Amino acid sequence: MTHEQYDLVVLGAGPGGSRAALLAAQAGMTTALVEQDDLGGTCLNWGCIPTKMLLGATASKPLLDIQRKQKSATGEINFSLNALQQKKDRFIKGSRQALGKQLKQAGITVLTGTGSLAGPHELEVATAEGSQSVTFKKLIIATGSTPASFPGLQADGDCVLDSSHILSLTEAPESLIIVGGGAIGLEIGDLFSRFGTQITIVEALPHLAPSEDADIGEALQKALKREGWTIHTGKRVSSLVTESGNAKLTFEDGTEITAAKALMAAGRVPASTTLQLDKAGVQITSRGWIVTDNQLRAAGNIFAIGDVNGRTLLAHAAGHQARYVVSVISGKYEEDYLPPAMPSCVYGHMEVMRAGATAKELLESGLDVFVSRAALIANPIAQSYGTTQGFVKAVWIKKEESFELRGMAATGHGVSHLIGAATIMVEQRWQQKNIHDIIYAHPTLDEALEAALSAPLEAL
Amino acid sequence: MTHEQYDLVVLGAGPGGSRAALLAAQAGMTTALVEQDDLGGTCLNWGCIPTKMLLGATASKPLLDIQRKQKSATGEINFSLNALQQKKDRFIKGSRQALGKQLKQAGITVLTGTGSLAGPHELEVATAEGSQSVTFKKLIIATGSTPASFPGLQADGDCVLDSSHILSLTEAPESLIIVGGGAIGLEIGDLFSRFGTQITIVEALPHLAPSEDADIGEALQKALKREGWTIHTGKRVSSLVTESGNAKLTFEDGTEITAAKALMAAGRVPASTTLQLDKAGVQITSRGWIVTDNQLRAAGNIFAIGDVNGRTLLAHAAGHQARYVVSVISGKYEEDYLPPAMPSCVYGHMEVMRAGATAKELLESGLDVFVSRAALIANPIAQSYGTTQGFVKAVWIKKEESFELRGMAATGHGVSHLIGAATIMVEQRWQQKNIHDIIYAHPTLDEALEAALSAPLEAL
Repeated sequence: MTHEQYDLVVLGAGPGGSRAALLAAQAGMTTALVEQDDLGGTCLNWGCIPTKMLLGATASKPLLDIQRKQKSATGEINFSLNALQQKKDRFIKGSRQALGKQLKQAGITVLTGTGSLAGPHELEVATAEGSQSVTFKKLIIATGSTPASFPGLQADGDCVLDSSHILSLTEAPESLIIVGGGAIGLEIGDLFSRFGTQITIVEALPHLAPSEDADIGEALQKALKREGWTIHTGKRVSSLVTESGNAKLTFEDGTEITAAKALMAAGRVPASTTLQLDKAGVQITSRGWIVTDNQLRAAGNIFAIGDVNGRTLLAHAAGHQARYVVSVISGKYEEDYLPPAMPSCVYGHMEVMRAGATAKELLESGLDVFVSRAALIANPIAQSYGTTQGFVKAVWIKKEESFELRGMAATGHGVSHLIGAATIMVEQRWQQKNIHDIIYAHPTLDEALEAALSAPLEAL
Repeated sequence: MTHEQYDLVVLGAGPGGSRAALLAAQAGMTTALVEQDDLGGTCLNWGCIPTKMLLGATASKPLLDIQRKQKSATGEINFSLNALQQKKDRFIKGSRQALGKQLKQAGITVLTGTGSLAGPHELEVATAEGSQSVTFKKLIIATGSTPASFPGLQADGDCVLDSSHILSLTEAPESLIIVGGGAIGLEIGDLFSRFGTQITIVEALPHLAPSEDADIGEALQKALKREGWTIHTGKRVSSLVTESGNAKLTFEDGTEITAAKALMAAGRVPASTTLQLDKAGVQITSRGWIVTDNQLRAAGNIFAIGDVNGRTLLAHAAGHQARYVVSVISGKYEEDYLPPAMPSCVYGHMEVMRAGATAKELLESGLDVFVSRAALIANPIAQSYGTTQGFVKAVWIKKEESFELRGMAATGHGVSHLIGAATIMVEQRWQQKNIHDIIYAHPTLDEALEAALSAPLEAL
């Protein structure tokens, strides 16, 4: 058993952990990064990046279908899911190697194995060569999350799949049931619909994109229904199993549906169970998320960032928390963690974007909330693609005599392109007088932001 | 001869003139708008909008070609230029009608005819029904610009076309010579290349996109060359004529090239010649651009906005000037006109975007200029589309101990989507400490902005 000592050990090499290790090494700390699986974590290997690789490569398909429907184009194209998977795998492998090289060049020790706490300054790493003990002055836990499964609703790798399984398929199923109408379910549904798969999506909450306001979710739903999706919302599932070579879903009301395959994409759970957190006094919630204080501290010298602390399950949130915690550890910063306006996107043909708060969240905080909206049908870029469904929305709160921007959201084709400008506007809490501080290029989809900001306010 | 009197007359119903008329009517002025041709001007009828309608509808073609080249897709698609033209024409007609309705609802009198000054408060309008005199307290001239032509290089509507002609073709020519490597030439070339037209582009200045920095123009050029374009830069043309059913271009060095059609897209000239400007003391430059003071005033009660004043030949610049002049006229504002950071885009498969100044402009002003760059190949969204050529660039000036952002530019697929965020950053003159004031969503092309802003600075 070897023994090593570090200024900082980081547990988990996803977007949060890798970033933290790199920043710490830059700041002069001796740093080790412990990862039991592939460098890059869920985001690079089984999440954001593989989905985007497949969506990006096939982005022409739905655009072309619109033109065919409008009799502006003829002909047929066929994508090879097998070829796309190979290309995607090569890209991910290359990215992993590039990350490994970057970590090495930064002088970071990468330990491949499963880490668990042995005490407040000690980690046991179970590697292929045996157990190794590492001690640390500070520890950052960035172990992320895994797909949720429930009794009777468990991916079996046969007909009931999780997102890792489905992102490896080399042939598209004829039909697919998706349990969960959040980002993962929506993106995978969009992807397979491009290969002719008949999509059925099931969401227990009242609308798809359940973390968004209802108007966004409902507009998205309407567009997907027009594209031929079967949508069940507000319906709870009691079981999802492989039966006679098909996936069979049973709702709580007893009705059943079947499809060639099913995807479990109903939430994620923290990867915290094997960490022996009690050995260092780290607390978790009843669902396993690591409890952190206002500085993302889980115990005296231990911090938790990214999915595993349950604050915001987004890769860029983890990266931002990494930057903050390394600043705190290196003594450069001591303020509480206060994240800037959070951006999030659902990608695909019909997209969803949001920066900052939903109207619902603000209403629940007891604020005086107003919204203004602009339909994409009035935007010439949306018109040019023939993708005119959806809208952009600004969410304001009344502050004395003026209104302050607290959120922007949109659904429609290409709306993820608006996230950068919207994030800045919301972070800076623009007022109406700021709208014309900049010139909006004509014609751009950005003009839909301008239109939403300038539209009449409606009190909620 | 009827006689009408208005608080404000606006000459020209393009994006500048229409906006000015609408804002003035909103502010309570009696307003007339004089237009000799179609409402909406060049932008709506023969410029930005028709080009974008055709580019948007066919956007899937180059994306699909990439996948075919990479063996991820098979099959063939064919767009019908005829069908697309009909769709485009319907959209433009509908937009014109919508604009007409909006003007009417705002209480604006629209006069169809050619206006010319009869004195400092009087305009003669030659209409189909005869001449009409209108008097005004204030006049805004927003007559725009027309394609330039030179002796021996004139569109003849046969094989030598201008942008209006070419945007009406219902069949793509086998080959096309484009004279002028600016936005119009690049967009039209991209469009017709999607229909199999062999593109040759000729630019007198040293690189394509001649108003951009050389690194942008050269990267664009490299990408277009790979797509099969023939590119002649730094070569002057002596004649371009229809000969034996073909377009024949002769360079000043005597060499000749021919193609089925040619497009003259080498600059634009002000639409100021028939206005009788001297009758109201309005001055023009030797090339015909209306001279305006710091408040865009051309004479005591007469203002000029948009292309015709020669400041910035972009639709959104005209709209911004309209807003400013109406504020001045209505007494709400009296500061000099100081436009915010100007955005501009060249659309298509390979795009160009810029917000604010080029490095060249800043160097010529004697400033201490630095640039930082990030290649798109490192961006996962660029990777997902297989469109990894190009880069994003930040242009800084040194100010005391820090650096201030004065421009951002990019070339590559989808870079027009970055213009909104880039415009705000440049307008706000971000410093390096501002880069992480916001969270950049992962994965987005926006991360290429972040990467360019964070890259090492290079002194010019």
